Amino acid sequence: LVAPRTLRGFRDLLPEVARFRELLVQKITTSFVSFGFRPIVTPALEYAEILRGKGSPDHDRQMFEFVDHGGRDVGLRFDLTVPLARFVAEHQSDLAFPFRAYQIGPVWRGERPQRGRFREFVQCDADIVGTESSIADAEIVAMMHATLSSLDIRPFVIRLNDRRILAGVLEVIGATEQSGAVLRALDKTERDGTSAVRGELIELGLGPDAADTLLGCTQMSGGPDDRVLEDLEKVVTDNVRGRAGIDALRTVRDLLDQLGVPSTGVGIDPSIVRGLDYYTGVVFETTYHGAPSVGSICSGGRYDDLTLVYSKTRAPGVGGSIGIDRLVSAVLDVEEIGLPRDPRLVVLGATQEEEIPAVLGLATGLRERGLAVDVHPDLRPAKNHRRYADRRGAAVVGTAVGSTIELHDLHTGSSKRVTLDEAVTAVVDLTKGPAG
Amino acid sequence: LVAPRTLRGFRDLLPEVARFRELLVQKITTSFVSFGFRPIVTPALEYAEILRGKGSPDHDRQMFEFVDHGGRDVGLRFDLTVPLARFVAEHQSDLAFPFRAYQIGPVWRGERPQRGRFREFVQCDADIVGTESSIADAEIVAMMHATLSSLDIRPFVIRLNDRRILAGVLEVIGATEQSGAVLRALDKTERDGTSAVRGELIELGLGPDAADTLLGCTQMSGGPDDRVLEDLEKVVTDNVRGRAGIDALRTVRDLLDQLGVPSTGVGIDPSIVRGLDYYTGVVFETTYHGAPSVGSICSGGRYDDLTLVYSKTRAPGVGGSIGIDRLVSAVLDVEEIGLPRDPRLVVLGATQEEEIPAVLGLATGLRERGLAVDVHPDLRPAKNHRRYADRRGAAVVGTAVGSTIELHDLHTGSSKRVTLDEAVTAVVDLTKGPAG
Repeated sequence: LVAPRTLRGFRDLLPEVARFRELLVQKITTSFVSFGFRPIVTPALEYAEILRGKGSPDHDRQMFEFVDHGGRDVGLRFDLTVPLARFVAEHQSDLAFPFRAYQIGPVWRGERPQRGRFREFVQCDADIVGTESSIADAEIVAMMHATLSSLDIRPFVIRLNDRRILAGVLEVIGATEQSGAVLRALDKTERDGTSAVRGELIELGLGPDAADTLLGCTQMSGGPDDRVLEDLEKVVTDNVRGRAGIDALRTVRDLLDQLGVPSTGVGIDPSIVRGLDYYTGVVFETTYHGAPSVGSICSGGRYDDLTLVYSKTRAPGVGGSIGIDRLVSAVLDVEEIGLPRDPRLVVLGATQEEEIPAVLGLATGLRERGLAVDVHPDLRPAKNHRRYADRRGAAVVGTAVGSTIELHDLHTGSSKRVTLDEAVTAVVDLTKGPAG
Repeated sequence: LVAPRTLRGFRDLLPEVARFRELLVQKITTSFVSFGFRPIVTPALEYAEILRGKGSPDHDRQMFEFVDHGGRDVGLRFDLTVPLARFVAEHQSDLAFPFRAYQIGPVWRGERPQRGRFREFVQCDADIVGTESSIADAEIVAMMHATLSSLDIRPFVIRLNDRRILAGVLEVIGATEQSGAVLRALDKTERDGTSAVRGELIELGLGPDAADTLLGCTQMSGGPDDRVLEDLEKVVTDNVRGRAGIDALRTVRDLLDQLGVPSTGVGIDPSIVRGLDYYTGVVFETTYHGAPSVGSICSGGRYDDLTLVYSKTRAPGVGGSIGIDRLVSAVLDVEEIGLPRDPRLVVLGATQEEEIPAVLGLATGLRERGLAVDVHPDLRPAKNHRRYADRRGAAVVGTAVGSTIELHDLHTGSSKRVTLDEAVTAVVDLTKGPAG
């Protein structure tokens, strides 16, 4: 015997959770489409050189990488943004820019598994590539707000920052050389705490005052956006990059108002850094207040130089990503998913061989009327079919008994016996009942 | 620069084809659900020992297999049936049997790429596990018939056989020892031709008469099903396995009639073997007459012993799989996919900074009315926005000009100018026009 087991950090989804995730993905797709996005698909496997060095040292370390049959060094994608950049560089002559695209699919990271974090997880990404306009940034954030709202997971808040603000502060305090490592250290503040991060910053060569200035900026969140931006201006003073970041956030905030996004759903938070090296401007994360411990359920930002790795043509982009598996974990944490009865599901069965043709004919008739029909293939007494139908969460179960059908409504618990001729109408009526 | 390229046998889907595939998958899901199936999800990566030796020597050779960060020997799944068997063995106490489940996802095979064949492709599988009843076999075949019909790809024919018939013939001609190799040789008849396969059979140790008897059976297709079965009976005579296979096919044919499947859509074809070792009973393939050269677009069969590899509890199953990528290739071969205008897509743009708030407000209003709106983020003259909207296949394009909106209907070519207050109603009316 080979033990039936899944790899550490990987898992199966049983029907209830799989169905729930499928419904969320359908709603997400509908929302993406309503903002004018269309799907693209890229492969799970890429040349390793396409992926390596594009995320962060952590992403490189966690990448599932191997040599394939043809001796090629290949890797499983760790996100959908790097493959999108490669896609845009490869197909640029076939695309209409600004290019709005969404991509929904699994990514793989060999990180330590923990609650809500898996080694394989599905991301739902949407991006606008080929423009530097803040309107694109605002459209991405507004769309993510509309999408999460359509999933009924309030309250949540999308927390915005701009990479250039901290970069400006680093210039002001004279610590630009270590900026990559400094940003990655700051990204761990929520997890490791301020004092640990302060220690790390000083280890990276920052003076205590510089470290405090930097940490002070990341703690300026919470107040009204205007005051946060004014406080940041006092630190940045006339630094060009820092001011560009502050101006961009102010513009995006205004555009979000014009797009009708409520100010309770978005806020400026200078502690948002993002652990990916490719971001160059606006960045964001989303806290779901129902389950803050699972981390950000929707993140993204602007990456103006990523395609330059693959092509001389610059294609600045901005995008966001919903971590659907983390979101499913979060919602399951908050609400027990009861398996609701499916108002359209009917189970049919027979007790004797001779009744099978009638059962199959009835199944086809009901399917043609738009119902979902599960034919139990084994000959059993009506009570066995009823037990199975109950476990499956069906609305109605019908068992052929001689030339009649014994119908049972699993919502109301009532039963009745009808002739074959009456059966289609009778079942359709039952599924339209109080529960349908 | 890193050259932007995909691995041999892998490919991107651009929006038109990705959208087309997404629509096909939606129709397939709807059909699966109407037959009472629910989704499950299994990981892309499994312990290699779960996968190895379950398909065929070819599948083992083609498997993407490597050692992960934790020193585990892992593989990318080459189909969805083997992971389903592992899933059923692992979760059997949590499932209601007979278990009806569908699974849609990518699989990977490092085979030589050719037309319609890729190293990564999406399969749409549906299975019934936990019953030996022929009703389950018939339900799978009837569902696949209904599903393919819902995709509008007629004419197609599902070709049925039963593994036990050829196994019985092998017993009759005394060649049971090499049965695995013999079946794999027979599976190549369509590709390599009869005389090459005859040579291979003789190399495998079959006498010329035995080889001819076997090849004679596989050539008995084409006539009415009853005659094919009678001809097979003459070869099988009183062999128990062979008769069981013939009886099963006769039963399935009757059940398919009772399920209302037209006899033009299914036929018995003793040449169908299937290249996978786990099949034990009914097997089928589907020829799409529009593009027969892409091979079978929907295949499957009964695998009664597969779960016994992982568990002492027997869970006999039957299932089918639609090769959606092969199907997309086939349909693209037959019909040029023109990019139809999206009757719900509206492109909006502005010519000057001051018009942006009006454009964003209009976008939100139209999205609330159920339209898909792409806001072009760059300030451009109306003719530029129109060109972009045309490339995107939009129905309507609107450009703010001062305090009015210049609307252009891309179907009719007509333009009109409306005030901001009139704009939502005017755009909604245009999208409801002759084209909507």
